[in-house]
Amino acid sequence: MDQTLRDTLKTEAAAIDAAMQADLAMVESPLLREVLHHAIFLGGKRIRPLLVRFSACLIAAPSPCLNTLASVFEYLHAASLLHDDVVDHADLRRGKATANQLWNNAPVILAGDYLLARAMGLVAAHGGAECQRLVGEAIRAMVEGEFLQMRVAETQDRSEASYFAILHGKTAALIAAACEVGIVIAGGTTAQRQALRTYGTNLGLAFQIIDDLLDYEGDPAETGKAVGNDFQEGKMTLPLLIALATAEEAGRDRLRGWLTARPETRRAAFGEAQQILATSGALQASRTKAESLITEAVATLNLFPDNKARQVLTGLAGYVLTRTK
Amino acid sequence: MDQTLRDTLKTEAAAIDAAMQADLAMVESPLLREVLHHAIFLGGKRIRPLLVRFSACLIAAPSPCLNTLASVFEYLHAASLLHDDVVDHADLRRGKATANQLWNNAPVILAGDYLLARAMGLVAAHGGAECQRLVGEAIRAMVEGEFLQMRVAETQDRSEASYFAILHGKTAALIAAACEVGIVIAGGTTAQRQALRTYGTNLGLAFQIIDDLLDYEGDPAETGKAVGNDFQEGKMTLPLLIALATAEEAGRDRLRGWLTARPETRRAAFGEAQQILATSGALQASRTKAESLITEAVATLNLFPDNKARQVLTGLAGYVLTRTK
Repeated sequence: MDQTLRDTLKTEAAAIDAAMQADLAMVESPLLREVLHHAIFLGGKRIRPLLVRFSACLIAAPSPCLNTLASVFEYLHAASLLHDDVVDHADLRRGKATANQLWNNAPVILAGDYLLARAMGLVAAHGGAECQRLVGEAIRAMVEGEFLQMRVAETQDRSEASYFAILHGKTAALIAAACEVGIVIAGGTTAQRQALRTYGTNLGLAFQIIDDLLDYEGDPAETGKAVGNDFQEGKMTLPLLIALATAEEAGRDRLRGWLTARPETRRAAFGEAQQILATSGALQASRTKAESLITEAVATLNLFPDNKARQVLTGLAGYVLTRTK
Repeated sequence: MDQTLRDTLKTEAAAIDAAMQADLAMVESPLLREVLHHAIFLGGKRIRPLLVRFSACLIAAPSPCLNTLASVFEYLHAASLLHDDVVDHADLRRGKATANQLWNNAPVILAGDYLLARAMGLVAAHGGAECQRLVGEAIRAMVEGEFLQMRVAETQDRSEASYFAILHGKTAALIAAACEVGIVIAGGTTAQRQALRTYGTNLGLAFQIIDDLLDYEGDPAETGKAVGNDFQEGKMTLPLLIALATAEEAGRDRLRGWLTARPETRRAAFGEAQQILATSGALQASRTKAESLITEAVATLNLFPDNKARQVLTGLAGYVLTRTK
């Protein structure tokens, strides 16, 4: 990411953090405040609120409440992480102990509920009915995505269609809503809304595909996390799904065998699995898919004047493909 | 409860159930549908949506979307029960297995999130900004109430003030919001809103106080649940708090001793504890408190014409005091 873009994002992320700090100062319970602080201020790139902000700035000067409205999407993201970590009994996130490790489930589930409610309250106060509809719809899609993922896991459905349906719900829906809300509050047209919805959806999908790829290709020294985790967990990520469908028969058989084996077997077999994914073209096919999603995302921005916001959104899209962690 | 009132409530509750059935038909995941069905349609008296409906009908004919908007409050109530039961590892509710007993935590937490989001979405679609503000504020109060309860348990705070502060958040806030939303959507005045807020708050507080009393006074054959559960759990309910503050010294000492003992000790001592609460006047004082709350609630209705809705709300308030289960 180039330095100017990085600086711009950093400055705006700090302003969004300030809006959230001010908003959460009204929390009464010390423990709730502590859990919320842990959930929101220990990390995170503020991608979703930044997308609200720069989408709005494509067509209008920022309104005074823009950052408050933008923070809605960080609240919703944080709420989903809090509840996900409870559900998954996760103990680490961003290299730090999860909230459910530090406290028990009660304050963590409740803090998630608080953020959900507060997010909807802020949209009610600053966004109007159409924004509310978009936010409500995004949460609905996120929950349906989680349930679809459970069903797919149970039925061992290994189709790309299901992979993308889950991804649309779990990841892309909220990002697309963030982008579209930015346009709605700036008073954009239907075509402009559709453009940013596509931009956000594609950005979300491509981001996850690259995440999938980094787990097979990444350099642990750079990503800060070991490669091979997804494979060890038997997680159905895009490169693996493509390989299962397109690798030569011997390779496919071996992948299938490992998937029914124990995690330790998969950990031991990871090097061989990487090779099968590389030689089958599954890694390249995944990257090509992410690239074409990003190309389409950037093309939607042609609808807008070439201002700073458009440059930022273009830069962010490019970064999704080049990031190494 | 007299038969006419019972019939009226039953008819309207069925209409609210039909609105919820229609609304939840859009859920895609079969498992999510199952969890939601379990959370909503296996029981419950629909008190909160009925309060929305009859509050609105105090001053205006029911609008076509009234039941849909009313069901928001059943969704929020059901969401809080789902999350509470996860948090408390509860295995029974209304005599049936809880959702978290039938499934694991993941679908149950997510189903609660779905209901929260759907509730806010329905308010957005049918209620307008002021209703949204009220709903958001009620959820915030519910979460703060839960955190206050945790803190009070930790600090062994045994004040009536804390008892009522918790009750305001956990129980009364949502009921008061239901009543006030009814007035808002019917286009009521500020004074009418305040009246129904008081009505709802007092109804919620009195309902819980009677619940507390039934655990010391109730007849297990009628209530369908054993008495003495609250005492066995060491739960700080109003009769116990009053007795701890006002019983003669010997009685207070024994109560304090039992509260630091094991649950089995409290179970064995329940008969004696009942006696201390009765002779100290704590049971009567609690009942008097509930009665005065209900008297005030009914008095607020004098602001309205004496129509059927007012008769229903008056009857409901009376029922809070006479119910035996």
